[in-house]
Amino acid sequence: MGKNMIRVGLLGMGTVGSGVFEILKMNEEQVRSRAGAGIEVKKVLVRDLEKERPVKIDRKLLTTDPEEVLKDPEIDVIVEVIGGTGVSRQYVEEALRNKKFVITANKDLMATAGAELLLLARKHNRNIYYEASVGGGIPLIRPLKHSLGANKIIRLMGIVNGTTNYILTKMSMENMDFETALAEAQDKGFAEQDPSNDLEGKDAAYKLCILAGLAFSSHVRFADVYTQGINNISKRDIFYARELGFAIKLLAIGEENEKGLALKVHPTLIPLSHPLAAVHYENNALFVVGNAVGETMFYGLGAGALPTGSSVVADLIDVARNINHQVENGIMETEFKTKKIVPTEELFSAFYLRLQAVDKPGAFANLATAFGDEHVSLDMILQKRSVEGLAEIVLVTHAVEEKRFAQALKTIKGFPAIKKINSVLRVFEK
Amino acid sequence: MGKNMIRVGLLGMGTVGSGVFEILKMNEEQVRSRAGAGIEVKKVLVRDLEKERPVKIDRKLLTTDPEEVLKDPEIDVIVEVIGGTGVSRQYVEEALRNKKFVITANKDLMATAGAELLLLARKHNRNIYYEASVGGGIPLIRPLKHSLGANKIIRLMGIVNGTTNYILTKMSMENMDFETALAEAQDKGFAEQDPSNDLEGKDAAYKLCILAGLAFSSHVRFADVYTQGINNISKRDIFYARELGFAIKLLAIGEENEKGLALKVHPTLIPLSHPLAAVHYENNALFVVGNAVGETMFYGLGAGALPTGSSVVADLIDVARNINHQVENGIMETEFKTKKIVPTEELFSAFYLRLQAVDKPGAFANLATAFGDEHVSLDMILQKRSVEGLAEIVLVTHAVEEKRFAQALKTIKGFPAIKKINSVLRVFEK
Repeated sequence: MGKNMIRVGLLGMGTVGSGVFEILKMNEEQVRSRAGAGIEVKKVLVRDLEKERPVKIDRKLLTTDPEEVLKDPEIDVIVEVIGGTGVSRQYVEEALRNKKFVITANKDLMATAGAELLLLARKHNRNIYYEASVGGGIPLIRPLKHSLGANKIIRLMGIVNGTTNYILTKMSMENMDFETALAEAQDKGFAEQDPSNDLEGKDAAYKLCILAGLAFSSHVRFADVYTQGINNISKRDIFYARELGFAIKLLAIGEENEKGLALKVHPTLIPLSHPLAAVHYENNALFVVGNAVGETMFYGLGAGALPTGSSVVADLIDVARNINHQVENGIMETEFKTKKIVPTEELFSAFYLRLQAVDKPGAFANLATAFGDEHVSLDMILQKRSVEGLAEIVLVTHAVEEKRFAQALKTIKGFPAIKKINSVLRVFEK
Repeated sequence: MGKNMIRVGLLGMGTVGSGVFEILKMNEEQVRSRAGAGIEVKKVLVRDLEKERPVKIDRKLLTTDPEEVLKDPEIDVIVEVIGGTGVSRQYVEEALRNKKFVITANKDLMATAGAELLLLARKHNRNIYYEASVGGGIPLIRPLKHSLGANKIIRLMGIVNGTTNYILTKMSMENMDFETALAEAQDKGFAEQDPSNDLEGKDAAYKLCILAGLAFSSHVRFADVYTQGINNISKRDIFYARELGFAIKLLAIGEENEKGLALKVHPTLIPLSHPLAAVHYENNALFVVGNAVGETMFYGLGAGALPTGSSVVADLIDVARNINHQVENGIMETEFKTKKIVPTEELFSAFYLRLQAVDKPGAFANLATAFGDEHVSLDMILQKRSVEGLAEIVLVTHAVEEKRFAQALKTIKGFPAIKKINSVLRVFEK
């Protein structure tokens, strides 16, 4: 029963597209046996027919006309690997209207238009698969939808941006400064020439929208996510953090409590004994806490042709099974509600603070009083020998309501003895 | 369309059974929304109607008569959490013959009779779900079947026994000796009163049968797995390993190469930078290398009522969807072949060796010559100051064919200057 061959229209032939093409060739038998059908790329939409490709591909498959792919009645499934939210969105919509299944590796698209697109898919009795949109090759979407389906998810914490993790790892393990680490990441192709989306945490925030949406069955928008980047992290912070028993990681965090959802991306001091602290270089990981399963983690490469291709082809296998068995086997994201977002200032967090103070009697007492007035209690204090009359002080607080910490910080900034607030970072306290 | 309520017959009400029952109550709405139907335990087979249970359960649900559960026409799915391979196998077979879906948390059953049971299920157009049989709450079966379905799996390395990982972690992090750590594991309920199945690596070997079967699409038997336990690991080995940059972990390893499958469970020195080295205490993890995805890892609690229950209920959700959509959504394990097993002596491994030698000229030269004759080359050597004329020597070799290393070791044992071979352990070289 069913089709012997599932035909694919590929939109885009960049890194991910090439990876998909290569895996379908390299693991052809494996894929056929798992899918219960062959999977064949029938047409590929490209911008430039003449461009050199990283994989060998029959010229006859290439076209510059989207209609040739989207309207081909033999094509069962459209794989969108163009990226962005412009034409890619139009193509996906047209594909769904033409009764194609859709697979996308496009996090921007799913984060900004996922809800509408999934509804459109539902309307046409089709589905959108997007395992590759977050975490590259790491299975994240399926585990959240299926394997952990019996859990209320309490917390997600993810290292979901390889560029920033690479930079932070280089700074930590090889004592590199930020600029050198960034330049190396760019050399290796992990960071783009304009790396601001990565460094400012925006890329991670898009991914958090997708993950938190699934975890908390809620439509989450980019604007719901508080975002702080890693631009201001210095080698000194990484050094002090380690001395205090922490690694610094850019974490995408989603939590649900009785007040609603908390959604944040920020550099975080995390205990060295935490599994996320051992996620190095360009690797990604998602740490998930469920009310039944407890703590779990999913780890692997978050980008690259073959890892991301691995997720796309897993989706293709699912689509093939769906086509041949007329199945709806996903959790229906279209039934999600929109949950309340808790403002950051009402959240609780511990803080790390590094500052320069004039080394004279009473300076520290003032500091301590300012914190005490806002009920901020101190967990760790480091003060090394002063240089030229200036003392560098590092403090870690216990968890406190963010607005109280902010108020204390404002007071402290007004003290004449405080010369500079170098860093303010959040600390994850288990 | 479909049923509003899926009815479950629970065989057994121990730790896992109670966990399943509790999750179905605690997360009732969540489960209903994900399953598309309510899930209700209709009958529970127990041995003793009077026994105190960890969860509150209506006495009317309990029965001591298996037929009352297995023959109830209203029951759609049987959850087998009795364990062992005796009556549990009979019950599962009868359930399948009665056209029930089956979910089991029973690794012994799946490792020893999985192939036959899956065939029987196929014959009756039903299926067996066994996510909970390995790795407790960690999603492992689904990722291997689905998420990584586009990959040829090159290697699996798992910490799949919580008891031994707890003991090794205690020895490593808290400088405890083996006996004390074992006693503590028993106190905490991680280790059984007769812990030999865990300590000798048998429990891990059963789990490897299930995982390797799926990863390599092959029927794997317990007898195919080479097994070495942790009984002989001493604090000194853990100390030296750390000094050389390694943690010692009991790993279940499956690899496929051109000669066939290699299947082993043994204590392994693994670099401290490897993600498995950061898996502490009772946590489990499976590290999977695929030819597309690269390195991935799945981490979490490998046992316990709620974690294991989380996997059983995830399977229940899948069954509910299957019942209501007449779906076959799994990879068919019944189509697996039986692949050739490579004998251990033909495998390659690096080795760690700790021995006591008389501290006199020529002793080390003899050792080195014996290794050289078998083409064993040395990677690391540690020799501390001798005590009472005896030197403790620690060696790490490069990878070598196991039979060559064994031959060299035999020669060395014959040297009069070698007083004792304390430890021989394998080393994972990436």
